[in-house]
Amino acid sequence: MTDNNIDTATPITLLGLGAMGTALARTWLATGTPLTVWNRTPHRAQALAGEGATVAATAAEAVAAGRLVVVCLLDDESVGEALDGIDLSGKDLVNLTTGTPAQARARADWARARGARFLDGGIMAVPPMIGVPDSGAYVFYSGSEELFTEHREVLAVPAGTTFVGADPGFAALHDVALLSAMTGMFAGVAHAFALIRREEIAPTGFASLLADWLGAMAGSVHLAAEQLESGDYTKGVVSNLAMQVAGNETLLRTAEEQRVSPVLLTPYMALMARRLAAGRGDEDTTGVIDLLAVG
Amino acid sequence: MTDNNIDTATPITLLGLGAMGTALARTWLATGTPLTVWNRTPHRAQALAGEGATVAATAAEAVAAGRLVVVCLLDDESVGEALDGIDLSGKDLVNLTTGTPAQARARADWARARGARFLDGGIMAVPPMIGVPDSGAYVFYSGSEELFTEHREVLAVPAGTTFVGADPGFAALHDVALLSAMTGMFAGVAHAFALIRREEIAPTGFASLLADWLGAMAGSVHLAAEQLESGDYTKGVVSNLAMQVAGNETLLRTAEEQRVSPVLLTPYMALMARRLAAGRGDEDTTGVIDLLAVG
Ligand SMILES: NC(=O)c1ccc[n+]([C@@H]2O[C@H](COP(=O)([O-])OP(=O)(O)OC[C@H]3O[C@@H](n4cnc5c(N)ncnc54)[C@H](OP(=O)(O)O)[C@@H]3O)[C@@H](O)[C@H]2O)c1
Ligand SMILES: NC(=O)c1ccc[n+]([C@@H]2O[C@H](COP(=O)([O-])OP(=O)(O)OC[C@H]3O[C@@H](n4cnc5c(N)ncnc54)[C@H](OP(=O)(O)O)[C@@H]3O)[C@@H](O)[C@H]2O)c1
Repeated sequence: MTDNNIDTATPITLLGLGAMGTALARTWLATGTPLTVWNRTPHRAQALAGEGATVAATAAEAVAAGRLVVVCLLDDESVGEALDGIDLSGKDLVNLTTGTPAQARARADWARARGARFLDGGIMAVPPMIGVPDSGAYVFYSGSEELFTEHREVLAVPAGTTFVGADPGFAALHDVALLSAMTGMFAGVAHAFALIRREEIAPTGFASLLADWLGAMAGSVHLAAEQLESGDYTKGVVSNLAMQVAGNETLLRTAEEQRVSPVLLTPYMALMARRLAAGRGDEDTTGVIDLLAVG
Repeated sequence: MTDNNIDTATPITLLGLGAMGTALARTWLATGTPLTVWNRTPHRAQALAGEGATVAATAAEAVAAGRLVVVCLLDDESVGEALDGIDLSGKDLVNLTTGTPAQARARADWARARGARFLDGGIMAVPPMIGVPDSGAYVFYSGSEELFTEHREVLAVPAGTTFVGADPGFAALHDVALLSAMTGMFAGVAHAFALIRREEIAPTGFASLLADWLGAMAGSVHLAAEQLESGDYTKGVVSNLAMQVAGNETLLRTAEEQRVSPVLLTPYMALMARRLAAGRGDEDTTGVIDLLAVG
């Protein structure tokens, strides 16, 4: 294991040994990083003791063991509960618990008020990808850039690192934005599979066509971004909104023919139609983004 | 141009010189394929006369000029109108007009009744991609495999060819299924951009993260396909439905914080919740596909 050791092995305290926390812990243990762990339910920590982790009896004891404290608990509320009343002065707190941007910002204020530097993280991976080279796993980080820079090497052990800004809410915002886009894609995929469901079409063969197509079409986000930045939604348009709204008819008729509910597609189509009705037929579909703003 | 010529240059008749028809025509002219064209509004055909096309005065005259007749008109109705009363016996009719699977099947019956072989096509490209090597442009074909095999070489000039079955409706079904999945992805992308809209986050930088993420996540359709084929939706699950439904809360709260309407995500989330309520929390989200079936 000596070969894998990080030169200046920063000791880490890790609170939370669920599926994700355990996966993180193992990558640090594998590189010989001194690791103190704590979990509310003790038996999960015992499993790691045999792999070289120091098990703390309480969260306070774990936090006292070192300066860099990584937290990976269920949600923001559990972070507040686990750290309640514990001295955080001089600590570097890295919060890998999923939450909203506002929760991350409030948690950053809370940490600063207790004398700690704060870095929030959003993990873009599932536990089996953690510590696996080329798995594509990475973590969005935001908040204290000093903390990030100082501990970057050890933070990079479980997954890639992408710092997205000093605003502690930005990691969560990037995380949620990507997951939201994925949710839309999965909704579209569900509709597509439903369409072929009653036909003699093998889902696995179809899946290859679908994956290639979605991968290729994902590239169109670059044009949408340029349109958003310039404010000109007609820039570089290949199929304008009027054509696309007309094309939606074929999608809806096909859903009807194949006896598939159109419910996953209709809200987006309704916004496209609203934008077209507002006289924006020569634009791209980017204008739909404007219609999503509330308040 | 002689170098690019196809050995046995099959003469082609092309009906329809809109944006797509014109793009197709140019690729055949560029390879020296003898091409007879017709368009309802004559001036569009005149432009191609200077590039080597033979311009027919009527659709009947164009059809009479050769055996292989390619049609690329606005919609299925215009195909019926343009070919109304024209002798199609012995013809090979290739319909590249977008339509539904049922329209393609009905058009195939109609063509067969008139003594023609029929191949339907669904073009997965926009005109600027046609005839451009490595653009990724291709056409789904279904219907007469004999026709497809016989004319494959000349059909492959404007774009790649993917034959998806003898059922003449399958090309349209594959086409619409991929476009439907893309519509879902674009809805998710619109939501994601709306989330970062009011923040100091450059859309172009964010777009790179988003494109990579969606490209990587598109690969998950393979697992969904395997689950559909086996009927076991718990097979290989990485994040089960219960976890994903819990995670949806963070997505919805974030939308609220960022003042973004959740309307593009909620229908899919509602189906996930319905499936969870049916006791399927240990499955993947694949069960949502079952819920889309109507009738
Ligand atoms: N798993 C994934 O695919 C994934 C992917 C990306 C991000 N994440 C995020 O990573 C974090 C951890 O996820 P996970 O998969 O490890 O979840 P998990 O397996 O459910 O583990 C949850 C952890 O939180 C602890 N916990 C819950 N409530 C607590 C409280 N009030 N006080 C103290 N500890 C408490 C649990 O302790 P006990 O053992 O005592 O219950 C356990 O250690 C979550 O925020 C999740 O969103 C997970
Ligand atoms: N453009 C794309 O991005 C794209 C992508 C994939 C598939 N497609 C499909 O390709 C087909 C053609 O698209 P396009 O972009 O070329 O459309 P377009 O530019 O609007 O051209 C429509 C063509 O249809 C003709 N037409 C319309 N109604 C007719 C009728 N009743 N009788 C005879 N001709 C009629 C038009 O003739 P006039 O000139 O006389 O009006 C014109 O040639 C459509 O089915 C479309 O869905 C297009």
